[in-house]
Amino acid sequence: MAFGMYAASIPLYQRQLGAISKVLEKGSAWAAARKVDEAVIMGIRMIPDMLPFSRQVQIACRFAEESAARLAGAEVPKPPENAEKTLGELRGRIAAVLDYLEGFKPAQLDGSEGRAISLTIGGNPMTFTGEQYLTGIALPNFYFHCTTTYAILRQAGVEIGKRDFLGAPAR
Amino acid sequence: MAFGMYAASIPLYQRQLGAISKVLEKGSAWAAARKVDEAVIMGIRMIPDMLPFSRQVQIACRFAEESAARLAGAEVPKPPENAEKTLGELRGRIAAVLDYLEGFKPAQLDGSEGRAISLTIGGNPMTFTGEQYLTGIALPNFYFHCTTTYAILRQAGVEIGKRDFLGAPAR
Repeated sequence: MAFGMYAASIPLYQRQLGAISKVLEKGSAWAAARKVDEAVIMGIRMIPDMLPFSRQVQIACRFAEESAARLAGAEVPKPPENAEKTLGELRGRIAAVLDYLEGFKPAQLDGSEGRAISLTIGGNPMTFTGEQYLTGIALPNFYFHCTTTYAILRQAGVEIGKRDFLGAPAR
Repeated sequence: MAFGMYAASIPLYQRQLGAISKVLEKGSAWAAARKVDEAVIMGIRMIPDMLPFSRQVQIACRFAEESAARLAGAEVPKPPENAEKTLGELRGRIAAVLDYLEGFKPAQLDGSEGRAISLTIGGNPMTFTGEQYLTGIALPNFYFHCTTTYAILRQAGVEIGKRDFLGAPAR
């Protein structure tokens, strides 16, 4: 099967979200062992004027599901409530997104590099090609929030390393 | 032009390294205004047992140049000396990698999804397909180190936001 827009998006999201879910599991175990309320972790910010931990995970999830839908020309799932209060609930959100991604077939995304993707950024309506949107917006944002998720737990003291971030070996 | 391995790698590296170079420029201006020795910034670690700032930039650069070469079947550039002592020197390293990437044409990388990529990870010789290598190793590692570069400066107090991380609008 030739490499195309599907191969450059869905499997990356799947692998990375799977890895982040395991990182969250380690975070929960770490908190439980130290009797740290998970609400504390959910609210950690790298610096006060940056979004908290919970939002990092939620935004990564959103970029994955939203870009899959947009590239496939499918209806974008309605904005999530972002009501998760624990790391376990964040893992549930990830699981739901993984289920959603599983439903996409290569034929739905392949060829979408030229598809017009219209979205509003900072209040401004903009149109990109599928390629511009995936490589210039979706992927960098997705990895940004996944890495920040990892970094917050790493800095908090959870025993994780880059191997945890990378997750399972490439398939 | 169809979307392939070139479109999924080289332009992403170019855009992201360009953005990181500007982030480093803001870091230098911030340090100069506060009379902070750049050697201090080069050595900042998010947590003591994590690689310092300078290495984050150097590793991101290395993943970009190394993966470009491997996917194209070209000779991998010799390991760099990583001798940079200032943010300006790191920007010089980025500029050299951008020059190097500029030399690759789509025809050299497109079709490399099935190419056998042999490398040694943690002392173990492993072989991946080009697709596995790009999407499971090169891109996640590249973005990991670019995001960590950003995060260290952000946490230090440099006035940057995610827009700086993302860089110029997608072309």
